[in-house]
Amino acid sequence: MRVAVVREVREHERRVALVPELVSRLTGAGLDVVVEENAGHWAYHPDEDYAAAGASLAQDDALDGADVVLAVQPLEPERVAKLKPGAIVISFLPVAAELDTIRAAREAGVTMFAMELVPRISRAQSMDALTSQALVAGYRAVLVAAERLPRFFPLSMTAAGTVPPAKVLVLGAGVAGLQAIATAKRLGARVEAYDVRAAAAEEIRSLGARFIELDLPPLEGAGGYAREMTEERAQLQRDLLAPHVSGADVLITTAAVPGREAPLLVQQPAVQAMQPGSVVIDLAAESGGNVEGSVPGEEQTVGQALLWGARNVPSQLPVHASRLYAANLVNLLLLMTSDGEVSVNMDDEIIAGVCVTHDGTVRHEPTRELLGEEG
Amino acid sequence: MRVAVVREVREHERRVALVPELVSRLTGAGLDVVVEENAGHWAYHPDEDYAAAGASLAQDDALDGADVVLAVQPLEPERVAKLKPGAIVISFLPVAAELDTIRAAREAGVTMFAMELVPRISRAQSMDALTSQALVAGYRAVLVAAERLPRFFPLSMTAAGTVPPAKVLVLGAGVAGLQAIATAKRLGARVEAYDVRAAAAEEIRSLGARFIELDLPPLEGAGGYAREMTEERAQLQRDLLAPHVSGADVLITTAAVPGREAPLLVQQPAVQAMQPGSVVIDLAAESGGNVEGSVPGEEQTVGQALLWGARNVPSQLPVHASRLYAANLVNLLLLMTSDGEVSVNMDDEIIAGVCVTHDGTVRHEPTRELLGEEG
Repeated sequence: MRVAVVREVREHERRVALVPELVSRLTGAGLDVVVEENAGHWAYHPDEDYAAAGASLAQDDALDGADVVLAVQPLEPERVAKLKPGAIVISFLPVAAELDTIRAAREAGVTMFAMELVPRISRAQSMDALTSQALVAGYRAVLVAAERLPRFFPLSMTAAGTVPPAKVLVLGAGVAGLQAIATAKRLGARVEAYDVRAAAAEEIRSLGARFIELDLPPLEGAGGYAREMTEERAQLQRDLLAPHVSGADVLITTAAVPGREAPLLVQQPAVQAMQPGSVVIDLAAESGGNVEGSVPGEEQTVGQALLWGARNVPSQLPVHASRLYAANLVNLLLLMTSDGEVSVNMDDEIIAGVCVTHDGTVRHEPTRELLGEEG
Repeated sequence: MRVAVVREVREHERRVALVPELVSRLTGAGLDVVVEENAGHWAYHPDEDYAAAGASLAQDDALDGADVVLAVQPLEPERVAKLKPGAIVISFLPVAAELDTIRAAREAGVTMFAMELVPRISRAQSMDALTSQALVAGYRAVLVAAERLPRFFPLSMTAAGTVPPAKVLVLGAGVAGLQAIATAKRLGARVEAYDVRAAAAEEIRSLGARFIELDLPPLEGAGGYAREMTEERAQLQRDLLAPHVSGADVLITTAAVPGREAPLLVQQPAVQAMQPGSVVIDLAAESGGNVEGSVPGEEQTVGQALLWGARNVPSQLPVHASRLYAANLVNLLLLMTSDGEVSVNMDDEIIAGVCVTHDGTVRHEPTRELLGEEG
């Protein structure tokens, strides 16, 4: 069967869905791999490397006759419409924003998977693309901050005196937040962190950071994600966090609730009270922002601090973001592959979980609701 | 006596020669401190902070009537000419490039010190500004590289597989090089390093990096700096280093011989052979460059690598670069201060060492030679 790897066309997307290093895992399972020309260009993988790894290169449309399509961003509806019935597409697919693509998949009888929907069970960990990409984002958030801070991160004991370590505050201790904490600690910063989930305290402390306890009752959510809270409670939380924000040299916010708007954690007065030259990284800028006023892809001055709004941060570390994402896709695809044939087994909790459309129907309940009467 | 702190006017200079935190060390010794308005602006120190620390602010020319002038960059000759006879100026002063300023100091009877000339003896360590600023440059070189590299620095073991650590090569293991090694190790990279001085091997290894041994006889120089070598030997060294360069994800070059052109260590073919997305930081770009083609203050693509040419790197971390430099100046000035009076004692090896002009004469021998018959 033929597995096609697309060249991403959306703006700011630099990742690629398969890297040369992993081609052999698919060919070894009896699959043919076809890669669109220049697919790996922005991730620093030239066409020759794919060819050397055993893939063929598509001069025209790699999707012609494809049984499986691997992508990072959702396909455009027009490309989905040209796929053969029964073809499988695996990509990120934020369903609320991609209803046209989903409708096209339903009409064309295409099976479409959304990597966001990989269930958070241990058997699916190796396919969890939200986690792998959050690792990248959390790491990079610290580097962006350290590169822009006019101070050292580590304590520096020199003959000309000792300079204290930078104070880093991380809000949200999911995968990205924990990776940010770990990276800031590596660089020698003094780190404190907060998460609405009380269970995060132990993870934060195990990385050597201080857990901020606010005088608020804890919240626990399903699936490891934080639940939403009342506006009154949210404002109290912001007020209690403000002094921690204004005392930090670096603030990194990572609080996200998948499929929903990010919680507002920090208002402008707290940023304006930060020391001159402080740096704020809002990793949630694309989903509404944890920091008031952040804009995806823009650096702006708030008070005397620099506010950096994240936009597709994994694409800013494209080699390894692609490497990890590709491994997630390969692991999912191989779960469905036997004797060189790919088949969709809805009895498997993972397959059923990630499936949005199949055989002319929309199987994902929230998407059906979004589509309304059409579903 | 009146100590004046100038607002730096040279392009790209963001440091300031005194920080608020250290004002009290001078006032406590009985000196008056006058700071030019906005002197600390680019180093994130507002005028109010100097005032709160006990300095006064100069509306017009802080240098009027000053007994001592503290600066980062050399003063312009016109400003020197207006100083009173016997006034002391302490700043960086690369003598070969600043002969006009030195002539002006001689004519005006101004005592001018060059921080580059602080002798490398233990009693002078706290005044060694080349060292303190090299610490900053070495740290920042790694952050610039890590922020631009499309890969992780650390080994990352994830559910989606393991990605190997970045390979960092540091050429030159003086203060900047050792700091770069230490910072790259902090971030989890695999580091190898080379220095022409065989004595550097132990320091490199003590930081956890691999020392590259080339099949060349070692060179040792005076004062802890590397000596120059024959062109034939230099080419052999470049040829032997080339495979290490092309195998690195990040190359950081830090080889400098004060007052001379930096040695060319890496030619373009070696950079062109680097993996796509590799990053090269040439900290010596301003003094001719260790890497062929590097341009101070510019990022360019060579082959498929990014070549970053350093330009006043300490100014890119202005808070702590200023803090350390200011401590160096304060330590030197306090060495000359007793009962609120500053006096120049040429019997002190440090004072005699840093002095370029005094009492109408040029005391620094190499500078006298540069000035020729005038000396």
